[in-house]
Amino acid sequence: MMRSVLVFGAGKSTTYLFKYLVGKALEEDLQICIADKNFENILPEIKSSEYVVLKTLDIQDEAKVEALVQEASIVISMLPAFLHIIVAKCCLAYGKDLVTASYISDEMKQLEGSVKEKGLTFLNEVGLDPGIDHMSAMEIVDDIQKQGGEVLLFESFCGGLLAPESDTNLWNYKFTWNPRNVVLAGQGGAAKFIQEGTYKYIPYHKLFRRTEFLEIEGFGSFEAYANRDSLKYRSVYGLDNILTFYRGTIRRVGFSRAWNLFVQLGMTDDSYTIENSEHMSYRDFLNLFLAYSPTDSVELKLRHYLKIDQDDVVWQKLVELDVFSTFKKIGIKNATPAQALQSILQDSWKLSPDDKDMIVMYHKIGYEIYGERKQIDAHMVVTGTDAAYTAMAKTVGLPLGISALLVLNKKITETGVLLPINRNIYEPVLKELKAQGISFTHKEVAYMGYNPNNVFG
Amino acid sequence: MMRSVLVFGAGKSTTYLFKYLVGKALEEDLQICIADKNFENILPEIKSSEYVVLKTLDIQDEAKVEALVQEASIVISMLPAFLHIIVAKCCLAYGKDLVTASYISDEMKQLEGSVKEKGLTFLNEVGLDPGIDHMSAMEIVDDIQKQGGEVLLFESFCGGLLAPESDTNLWNYKFTWNPRNVVLAGQGGAAKFIQEGTYKYIPYHKLFRRTEFLEIEGFGSFEAYANRDSLKYRSVYGLDNILTFYRGTIRRVGFSRAWNLFVQLGMTDDSYTIENSEHMSYRDFLNLFLAYSPTDSVELKLRHYLKIDQDDVVWQKLVELDVFSTFKKIGIKNATPAQALQSILQDSWKLSPDDKDMIVMYHKIGYEIYGERKQIDAHMVVTGTDAAYTAMAKTVGLPLGISALLVLNKKITETGVLLPINRNIYEPVLKELKAQGISFTHKEVAYMGYNPNNVFG
Repeated sequence: MMRSVLVFGAGKSTTYLFKYLVGKALEEDLQICIADKNFENILPEIKSSEYVVLKTLDIQDEAKVEALVQEASIVISMLPAFLHIIVAKCCLAYGKDLVTASYISDEMKQLEGSVKEKGLTFLNEVGLDPGIDHMSAMEIVDDIQKQGGEVLLFESFCGGLLAPESDTNLWNYKFTWNPRNVVLAGQGGAAKFIQEGTYKYIPYHKLFRRTEFLEIEGFGSFEAYANRDSLKYRSVYGLDNILTFYRGTIRRVGFSRAWNLFVQLGMTDDSYTIENSEHMSYRDFLNLFLAYSPTDSVELKLRHYLKIDQDDVVWQKLVELDVFSTFKKIGIKNATPAQALQSILQDSWKLSPDDKDMIVMYHKIGYEIYGERKQIDAHMVVTGTDAAYTAMAKTVGLPLGISALLVLNKKITETGVLLPINRNIYEPVLKELKAQGISFTHKEVAYMGYNPNNVFG
Repeated sequence: MMRSVLVFGAGKSTTYLFKYLVGKALEEDLQICIADKNFENILPEIKSSEYVVLKTLDIQDEAKVEALVQEASIVISMLPAFLHIIVAKCCLAYGKDLVTASYISDEMKQLEGSVKEKGLTFLNEVGLDPGIDHMSAMEIVDDIQKQGGEVLLFESFCGGLLAPESDTNLWNYKFTWNPRNVVLAGQGGAAKFIQEGTYKYIPYHKLFRRTEFLEIEGFGSFEAYANRDSLKYRSVYGLDNILTFYRGTIRRVGFSRAWNLFVQLGMTDDSYTIENSEHMSYRDFLNLFLAYSPTDSVELKLRHYLKIDQDDVVWQKLVELDVFSTFKKIGIKNATPAQALQSILQDSWKLSPDDKDMIVMYHKIGYEIYGERKQIDAHMVVTGTDAAYTAMAKTVGLPLGISALLVLNKKITETGVLLPINRNIYEPVLKELKAQGISFTHKEVAYMGYNPNNVFG
C-alpha cells in the first residue's frame, strides 16, 4: 500500500515542496494529498501528476480535517502559522507525525507532554529561516564544541532578495514572500541582542538606521537589521554564556535607510484604520502623516520633515513608487496605514514571471580553542529559476519535504515538539539538501570579536 | 443628622479637595470620611479636623468597601483610574451617587443602563484635564451655538508646569503629578486629529518633534504636543463636522525636543525588563541603547547617534540629569526602561517643599456667525502655594469637591454615567470655581483657521 503524505496549504511557496515529493513518489511509494481552499498556485506539472490528490478544504471544517489526517502516513502544514495548532491537535488525536516550517508557538509548545507520551514527532522550524539557519549553524557550533572549543560570538543573517539579473529597481527589492510580513517586519517590541557581553536594545523606529554590513565574495555588499528575538535563541542553542549573539535580516545596501522613511512617517502602523482610504490618492495618503499647511507642497513638507537633501537617492526611491501620485488610489476600504503602504508597494515590487530571486544566508561564528581565538564564516546563496520556482520556495520547501520523508522512513526518531538543532536531526537533512544543490561555503577568518570597524581597543 | 461624604483615596493630589470639603463642613453639615491604605499624605490640619474620619482600607476588601458605601451620602473616588469600577459597582448596589476625575472607562460606560434605571448620578471627568477643560470649552461652544454660530476650529491645551519662581532647572520641569504617566505619555498608538478637514496622524516617535506653539500674555511662550485621543472628543462635544479639532499637552519651550532624545533611544519603553538593572549605573543604562564599540565613549556615541551638536542645550539637559554617571545606580530590580528612566528623573525633578507649580490651560475656538469668521481664545493660569497645596491638587480637587456637593444638594440632578459637558452641570461648577478664584480670561482674536505660520494660502 502507498504511503500518504498529507500537506495542508497550497500557497505560492509550496512549488518546490511538491516538486520534491512528486520526484520521490515512485521510489518512496508515496501519494501526495494536498488540502486547501483553492489550488490556483499549484503548477500544471504537479496537478497532473498521478501521485497527487487534491482535496478542497475549509480548515475550520473539523470533521473533514479529521478524516484527512486519519488517512495520512505523515502530515506537513504549510498553512499560515496561527493555523498549525488546529492540524497539530488533530495529529495528536490520531497519532500522526507533523512537520512545519514555522516558529514553535506557545500553544504548540504546550502539546510537548502529550506528543512525547504518544511517541510522536512534531518537527517545526525546518524551512529556511527558521530552518536551514538553525541546522547549518548548529553543525558548526557542535563541531567546535566536539573539538573542545568554546563559542564566543554568534551572528547569523538571512534575507530573501533578487538575483542580480532581476535586480531592476532602485530599492533592489521585490516581494518574494508574504508582503504583509515585510511591511510589519520589526514591529512589536524592541530588538534585543548581546554584543561583547553588553545587552543592546533597538526600538523599532531606529531599527533601520542601526544596520550591520556584510560582504560576500562574488555577490557584493549587503546590510542587515536586527531581528527581534535574538536572545531567545541564545539558550535554545545552548550558548547562554556567549559574549555576542545577534540574528539579522539581510537587504541590499541602502534599502533600510529608504525604508526608514516609511517607519518615520508612521506608514507601517497596523493598529488603526483610515477613513475613506479606498478612494484616497497615494499623495493624500502621504499627506496624512505630514503637518498641515495652507500653502506648502507635500514634496517640500516631506523633504523638510525627514531632512531629505535635494540629491539624496532615497527621494528617487519614493518617486519610483509613485507616492506623490494624485491619480493612483489606495483601493482598500478602511485600510490601516500598513495595508495602504503594502498596496502601494505591491504595484511596484511584483515579481515578473521570469524574475529570479536569491536567498542569502551568512553565519559568523567565533570561538576559543586551546587558548587561540578563531572564527568561521559560512554563507549560502541560492538563486531561483523564475517567479514560480523561487529560491524562497526551494529553501523553505526542500528541508520540509526532506524532513518529512526522514521522519516517515524512521531516519529521524526523536519524539516531542522539536526544532532541528540536534545532530541526529540536522545531519541527514543537510546531507540530502547538499544532494539537492543547497550547501554552505565555509571560510576561516581572523577573530576580532564583535568589532564593526575593525579597531583595536 | 450629618451628611457623609465618602472619599476613596488619600494621595498627594487630595489636599485641596479635603481643604474645600472641611471648609464647607459646618455650613453644609458634612462629615468627611476618608478611606485608604495609609494617610501619610494627609496634612495635619485635615487629620485634626473634627469633621474628618479616617478609615484604613484595603480596596480589595469587599465587605469593608460595602459597609463604607452603605453609610455614605455621596461617594468620591480619588483612587487610580482602574480601581474606580470596584467603587462604582458598590455605589450602584447601594444606590449612591459617585464623582470621579478620570476618563470614563469602557467598564464604567457599561453601567450606564443600570445607573439611569436607579436614578443615580455617576459624574466623571470632573477634575482638571479631563474636567475644567470640558467645562470651560463647552461653555464657549454652547454660547457660540446659542447665538447661531457654527464652530469651525477647536484647539485645547493643558499642562502642569512650574511657576516662574520655582522654574529652576534646564528642563523647566519637575514632577507635579504621577511621574509614571509623564514617562509613558503619548504611547499606545499614533496621535490622531484633524486640521482644516484633513486627518493627521503622528506616530509616537515623532510626537515630540511636531509641537505647536502658544503665547500667553504675561506668562511667556509654551509648546504643546498632541494628545492621542483628539478625535474621540469631536463627537462627545457634538462637533462632528468641525474642520480642526486638536487637544494637546503644554510644556515650556524646549522640553519636547530634549524629551525626544529619550524616545529616540527607546528609554521610555515599558514592554520588557532589563537584567541586572538594580546595580546598573545610569551610564551603563544609557549604553544599552547605543551601538557597541570597543573604543568610543558613551558620550561620543550618543552625540553621533542622535546628531547632537557640541553647543546644543539638550546636551546640558542630559548632563543635568547625571545620565553619564558611573556611580548613581538605577536601584530597581528587573526594571523596564521606562521605570529606570523614571528613577533617574525623580532624582532631579522632585518638588522642594516650597516649590510652586503652575497649571496652564488654553482654548482656541474659531467659528462662523452671520457670514463672519471669528475666534475666541481663552486661558487659565493657576499657581500653587507650595509642594503640598499645588495648583494641580487645586484644579483637580476643587471641581471634584464642588461637583460632589452640587450632586449632594440636588443642584445637579441629571442621571447616568456622565461627563460635565451639559450646561446644567458645568454652569454651577464653573460659578463656584470662580468664587474660589479659578476662572478664564477670554479674548477675541482674528480667525485664520489652523494656520501655524499665519500665511495666506
